[in-house]
Amino acid sequence: MAGEGSVKVFGVQGSPFSCRVEIALKLKGVDFEYFEENLANKSPLLLKYNPVYKKVPTFVHNGNPLAESLVILEYIDETWTNFPLLPNNPYQRARARFLSKFIDDKCFPSVGKALWARDDKEAKENLKFLENELNGKKFFGGDTVGLVDIAGTCIAFWLPAIEEAVGAKLLTAKEFPKLCKWSHDYVNHPVVKEKLPPRDLLIAYFRG
Amino acid sequence: MAGEGSVKVFGVQGSPFSCRVEIALKLKGVDFEYFEENLANKSPLLLKYNPVYKKVPTFVHNGNPLAESLVILEYIDETWTNFPLLPNNPYQRARARFLSKFIDDKCFPSVGKALWARDDKEAKENLKFLENELNGKKFFGGDTVGLVDIAGTCIAFWLPAIEEAVGAKLLTAKEFPKLCKWSHDYVNHPVVKEKLPPRDLLIAYFRG
Repeated sequence: MAGEGSVKVFGVQGSPFSCRVEIALKLKGVDFEYFEENLANKSPLLLKYNPVYKKVPTFVHNGNPLAESLVILEYIDETWTNFPLLPNNPYQRARARFLSKFIDDKCFPSVGKALWARDDKEAKENLKFLENELNGKKFFGGDTVGLVDIAGTCIAFWLPAIEEAVGAKLLTAKEFPKLCKWSHDYVNHPVVKEKLPPRDLLIAYFRG
Repeated sequence: MAGEGSVKVFGVQGSPFSCRVEIALKLKGVDFEYFEENLANKSPLLLKYNPVYKKVPTFVHNGNPLAESLVILEYIDETWTNFPLLPNNPYQRARARFLSKFIDDKCFPSVGKALWARDDKEAKENLKFLENELNGKKFFGGDTVGLVDIAGTCIAFWLPAIEEAVGAKLLTAKEFPKLCKWSHDYVNHPVVKEKLPPRDLLIAYFRG
């Protein structure tokens, strides 16, 4: 089986991006060795495997390194084909890729801007766009967790923790009922839950 | 055949991103309707099909719209399977996705910084990384043009035109012999060549 062999993940507990990789592997039932990095003093292994970006997550399968969480998620999905993260239909696959990229390039940065710079116009428009995408589905992937849900870990779990840390509220049940329900269902999913960092740790980090 | 039906591309002639979509379709032999946009006065159709980003390229297949050039390229590759743009091997596919994202997120922006702000340290490191990836291959895809080559249109064709416009030189045969040979081979590829905009038009645009 293509998926066999040694799997290493270099991450930090507080990063929504390395958390994505752990969640995907756990959903697929893939065993892996986890290395917690100190970003102030990166390990020689991290620098060896990710010389361009030198950042987490870095993923290594049978000695072959990969960087960029969304690239890693697609590799995991193609290598371990049980519990598919991407839909079969090419257009739905493209939509899932688009939404994941939208979360990284547009939505999560605008949320940060809203909470720290207190300018929430753009963040609300972006969250409304995600809200409309859910449209009757439990998860972005349908009945089961998929690529967009995992990409959205930063919205489902990190965003409410940041809100609590900075004392602001953006993702309200009144304005975003579907996203709030999704966030609740996602962070309470038994596999996802097990891989999320302690909420208190995140709040303390963002307060600091 | 999944790939049949109506294909529309909304682009601007001077954009390396909309050019990518045209090149991929042409390589696959897919007929499409092209709509030249005026970015100062975007068409109602563009705004309808791409309400989030409102930008080019926007791609529509049988009424289903997609944005983001790399997402569109993967959709095209999955829908029209002749002349594959991505390798078969999952690790090589992931590397191709990583390199395409690297070109967009890191390499091309650093090139712009080098040529306009005259700070070329980062751009040279990034180009050197791409140079080393070629390593004996004619194209990043091997013997034939693939995803990374098409993503690299901005380096192969736009970069030399910008160099000429601003009177600076970054991609020299002395420092980057493999990239220079690749750039030459790529822009002279019969299909690619046909879809590149007139060089004079680009130079005039970047002078202005």
